[in-house]
Amino acid sequence: MSLIVQKYGGTSVGTPERIVNVARRILATKEAGNKVVAVVSAMSGVTNNLIKLANEVTGDADPTEREMDVLLSTGEQTTIALTAMALNAMGAKAVSLTGAQAGIKTDGVHTRARISNISPEGVHELLDDDNIVILAGFQGETLGGEITTLGRGGSDLTAIAMAAAIDADLCQIFTDVDGVYTCDPRVVPDARKIDEISYDEMLEMASSGTKVMQSRSVEFAKKFGVTFEVRSSLNDNPGTIVKEETMSMESVVIRGVSLERAQAKVTISAVSDTPGTASMIFGAVSDANVIVDMIVQNVSKTGITDISFTVNEADVGKAEEALKPVLAQLGEEATIEAQDGIAKLSVVGIGMRSHSGVAAEMFKALSEGGVNIEMISTSEIKVTVTVSEDQIDKAAQVMHDAFGLAEA
Amino acid sequence: MSLIVQKYGGTSVGTPERIVNVARRILATKEAGNKVVAVVSAMSGVTNNLIKLANEVTGDADPTEREMDVLLSTGEQTTIALTAMALNAMGAKAVSLTGAQAGIKTDGVHTRARISNISPEGVHELLDDDNIVILAGFQGETLGGEITTLGRGGSDLTAIAMAAAIDADLCQIFTDVDGVYTCDPRVVPDARKIDEISYDEMLEMASSGTKVMQSRSVEFAKKFGVTFEVRSSLNDNPGTIVKEETMSMESVVIRGVSLERAQAKVTISAVSDTPGTASMIFGAVSDANVIVDMIVQNVSKTGITDISFTVNEADVGKAEEALKPVLAQLGEEATIEAQDGIAKLSVVGIGMRSHSGVAAEMFKALSEGGVNIEMISTSEIKVTVTVSEDQIDKAAQVMHDAFGLAEA
Repeated sequence: MSLIVQKYGGTSVGTPERIVNVARRILATKEAGNKVVAVVSAMSGVTNNLIKLANEVTGDADPTEREMDVLLSTGEQTTIALTAMALNAMGAKAVSLTGAQAGIKTDGVHTRARISNISPEGVHELLDDDNIVILAGFQGETLGGEITTLGRGGSDLTAIAMAAAIDADLCQIFTDVDGVYTCDPRVVPDARKIDEISYDEMLEMASSGTKVMQSRSVEFAKKFGVTFEVRSSLNDNPGTIVKEETMSMESVVIRGVSLERAQAKVTISAVSDTPGTASMIFGAVSDANVIVDMIVQNVSKTGITDISFTVNEADVGKAEEALKPVLAQLGEEATIEAQDGIAKLSVVGIGMRSHSGVAAEMFKALSEGGVNIEMISTSEIKVTVTVSEDQIDKAAQVMHDAFGLAEA
Repeated sequence: MSLIVQKYGGTSVGTPERIVNVARRILATKEAGNKVVAVVSAMSGVTNNLIKLANEVTGDADPTEREMDVLLSTGEQTTIALTAMALNAMGAKAVSLTGAQAGIKTDGVHTRARISNISPEGVHELLDDDNIVILAGFQGETLGGEITTLGRGGSDLTAIAMAAAIDADLCQIFTDVDGVYTCDPRVVPDARKIDEISYDEMLEMASSGTKVMQSRSVEFAKKFGVTFEVRSSLNDNPGTIVKEETMSMESVVIRGVSLERAQAKVTISAVSDTPGTASMIFGAVSDANVIVDMIVQNVSKTGITDISFTVNEADVGKAEEALKPVLAQLGEEATIEAQDGIAKLSVVGIGMRSHSGVAAEMFKALSEGGVNIEMISTSEIKVTVTVSEDQIDKAAQVMHDAFGLAEA
């Protein structure tokens, strides 16, 4: 008998019929001889409706965050009750638990709380009494008994944290894709599902455009050593196992290729290469609530340098506006230039650590494929380049071929 | 400064705009220098939608009652959050509490739990810290931390029980009518709003068709001596105060006239007047889940008697079916006759206790008005008759006139 934590997202429980399907899947797991805790999200659309109601009653004011948590937590509470009663109607023995009832304690930062502790005794008791436990994702309570929510990706986090707390044998994150792919199959038709991937690779894939899960949940899993599987709730295909890296993983140089479109590049030319310059630039951009992704600065030759960075295309105007007031302080000749229509291509793999020449191989392949590289940035297990957005599909296929990712 | 508990029903908080209106009313009460606890129901329609979802995921099986409570309690939780954030958006300081957070403990009878205890310390602390408390009606939790709901009329009960627990100066039940009337104003145009009514009168009015509140909440208020006011959330008119009876109340013989339509009469003729006969009849009817209202049996003359009772028109078929199998045991000549199209008219007043002749006056007035009386039943403070349904409006006006109810 295994102890299994499953997580079903909002799309998987988006209608009464789908809730019944999810209940069947949970029951099948139980009947295969396992103990099951199933974490469920709010039915898709419900959270947005609640936010709409909140905006309607508060007008121009921002809804109180404490009350947003009281409001939004009803979404998951609705799903746990419906899922548990669906299971009971099938003759199973199921009990729903809110985050608070399941002993999930958080700090008091409403709408984006962090889990501080889980007391799993209640869950264990229910499981020992042969119950299926249906657990509300995304929520917990403070020590003072206030309802909190965990922010984006919170239900994945609930599943992984509960799996750690009850020392589950397996944690399955059910979603609407079959797992993590070597590249987006809509772009690269021979992209292959990855069987196993390390936490670090998963994190680098996520941060470079492969949006299967929020980085936060993967980081939590890494910290507590929770092995989990990302798989589809629509079929029975095995998914992608995300785990500690193993020796054998290193034999694969590149695990996958990530894409991110709709980026823009901002270049500030002829800035003084003096202490405080970068801090002045990125302080101004950050104050405008613009998130900067890649940053590239070349070595200075004459005390004058260029700094480039990428932002989401939607933010480029805000970034330019934020920089204009500080431009004069950056250097007499300093100019700003922004360019949209940029895309980002990353190759990720822990094998890079022990294989030299990945970047060179990448540039060679792109060059032979006629793709022009604009910016380059590297980390220990990732090489990222930016290219013109209209070349990204071609670039992705070239990379996928160059590193032989279509073959298992 | 007074400590005031207010309760707003589902219609009063049925849309975002109405929630904002309710928030304004709560704020006005606070700004008049009072401490305020406002109990709110689920937005109208929400509970029915949740029940529909429950039926959709459970098919032919009955939804588990424990899970129904988890599900239905989200309705009030949504309203408390929205109401509190609407108040905060107006610059007020408001905090929402679920039943569990407010210290409302119940027994474990899911979907119709009884309040066993309220620990009001948390509510007092919030009020002392100058907060408006927005409390979820209809819900509580067991000692083991399971969510429970209180059944029909549960939000009124929450308000009255919390008013008792915090020793409120005033408990206001806001609804969509101006108060309790001497008769239904749609039937008797000169019906007058009653300024004060005793618990017992209110209970008799409720049980005979005046559906302003569930009897259960009135009984609770009586038991704990909570004076409350029923008033409209749509205007600022004073409502009806429901309280312990006072000497002066007795000077009014009849407080009001209640109507109930769509009743049916079942008569079992020629039954043996022997011990066990009534028990056999009403046992059979009760086993069929039919609720019997009035029961009339005439004095037996020859060891043979007739027994009549009334039921809701919708139940008359079920009652007849239930009685057929026992008919032979009731007497050799026993027959059943059912008649629908009956209505019930009651006059209620604690003054009856000290004034004789109310029944006689009632029968005389009805007779002069050309209304034929079918069955008669009396209690200490109520006289009820049944008449043909097509005569009920006329009968109500005749009664209202006969007892001078239009004059204050």
